[in-house]
Amino acid sequence: MQIVETIESVRALVRAAREDGSKIGLVPTMGALHVGHLSLIEAARQECDFVVVSIFVNPTQFGPGEDFDKYPRPLEADLEICRKAGVNVVFAPTVEQMYGGENLTWVEVEKLTEPLCGRFRPGHFRGVATVCAKLFNIVLPDAAYFGQKDAQQAVVIRRMVSDLKMPLRIVVCPTVREPDGMAVSSRNKYLTAQQRNDAACIYKSLARCRQMIEAGVRDAEQITAEMRKILEQVGSVEIEYVSLVDAETLEAAEHIGGRIMAAVAVRLDTARLIDNIVVEVGAQ
Amino acid sequence: MQIVETIESVRALVRAAREDGSKIGLVPTMGALHVGHLSLIEAARQECDFVVVSIFVNPTQFGPGEDFDKYPRPLEADLEICRKAGVNVVFAPTVEQMYGGENLTWVEVEKLTEPLCGRFRPGHFRGVATVCAKLFNIVLPDAAYFGQKDAQQAVVIRRMVSDLKMPLRIVVCPTVREPDGMAVSSRNKYLTAQQRNDAACIYKSLARCRQMIEAGVRDAEQITAEMRKILEQVGSVEIEYVSLVDAETLEAAEHIGGRIMAAVAVRLDTARLIDNIVVEVGAQ
Repeated sequence: MQIVETIESVRALVRAAREDGSKIGLVPTMGALHVGHLSLIEAARQECDFVVVSIFVNPTQFGPGEDFDKYPRPLEADLEICRKAGVNVVFAPTVEQMYGGENLTWVEVEKLTEPLCGRFRPGHFRGVATVCAKLFNIVLPDAAYFGQKDAQQAVVIRRMVSDLKMPLRIVVCPTVREPDGMAVSSRNKYLTAQQRNDAACIYKSLARCRQMIEAGVRDAEQITAEMRKILEQVGSVEIEYVSLVDAETLEAAEHIGGRIMAAVAVRLDTARLIDNIVVEVGAQ
Repeated sequence: MQIVETIESVRALVRAAREDGSKIGLVPTMGALHVGHLSLIEAARQECDFVVVSIFVNPTQFGPGEDFDKYPRPLEADLEICRKAGVNVVFAPTVEQMYGGENLTWVEVEKLTEPLCGRFRPGHFRGVATVCAKLFNIVLPDAAYFGQKDAQQAVVIRRMVSDLKMPLRIVVCPTVREPDGMAVSSRNKYLTAQQRNDAACIYKSLARCRQMIEAGVRDAEQITAEMRKILEQVGSVEIEYVSLVDAETLEAAEHIGGRIMAAVAVRLDTARLIDNIVVEVGAQ
């Protein structure tokens, strides 16, 4: 496995692999790798011959007062995980490499970035779209792999790639969960044991949503009210949003039908946690 | 020469050329080709093995009330020019091909898009940057060729490519001029014989600027006042701006030094014309 820091180096390695006929897979990460990332790497290894993992805590997707400084950066452990997982190249650039002196260019995706996390993290998806555009242009992968846990991110990036005619496929892999249903996330590290315990209510609310839809409930407000009740039972949990939206357009789903995403964002003290499920609802 | 309309077709042709070891050159145009475009094609042919000319009147770079509808579209004549010039592929997509049902993604370049034409054509450079990003992603050229006549466009695109790490070179070719100095432009077709005659004052004002700088004048206001006087002598000419700016940052140049761009935009009736020169000023 090669570990490189510069754009020129990663480009040279990928170019050589491509000239050998390899399909290139990119797994863009902010490091602090866990089994969720591993599932992305495994998907990339299944479909591609040459797998690049980028590790870059992207400053432009953090708002003022967010956790950019304290975001975990266990580089040695991350490299070990990548090595064991059969990654070919880890690209771990500096901020200077990715943003130069002054970055003036931004990729903006309208509409899809407005609801859900967009309301609570202004500029977040602009930062995500811009850094992904850079990474895609640097690596020119055949496919890039994202987790369903960050559902809005996946929808935004897919749309950016489609609108800007970027020559790659976006693959979205299922959320990896703990035994109690809790979605695996680098930010779970911020939780105390008690908070981790409390946070199980997030998945409980999503499971209840699925159950209600499967039982035939079609009133979005009835479902979100029930979900909120489950979350509000846990005193340490502060709700940011509980939403039912169309899984493609992210527009509020008043009538439940088609591919519906239930999405939750909460705070436990300073930690911000998100999760979602997608439910397919057949015509009735 | 192949003429293609779809993204898939142009991608397939370019891929085959690249696999044969060809360097790919792209000349993005809105058609209505003239000797200015020809000089771009010639530069591309000099440096590349396989030249793609795109012809696409990009709706998103025209404001409401601008000349999108009446912009000249002499496709047959354009194809003949490309054929004679040794172009390999003309890519002439539909608006549907380039923008799909609804385009949500935009490339925004800050600061550089604010002065000069940016003040008079809000959204113009967003449209230019976005369509160029699409074209670059579709063709993946080694180099793309632009004219110095649209100086701000060249600066903006160069910055977008640099910021977003796009894997191509931007080549800016000198403005091609008529015998009286008038910059060749597709929009010159809008002018009556009298207006065409009047429009010569644009280059006259730029030439006077160069003369003054070469004579040692270093006061920007003194120079632009003189330029305005030349333009105002022609009754049919309405000035939009007369500016001296740093040729890289496009910031107003109060002190004349380094690479200085003198830029002019005027209206003659409904036609809008722009031109510029760059003067190198050594330290004194």
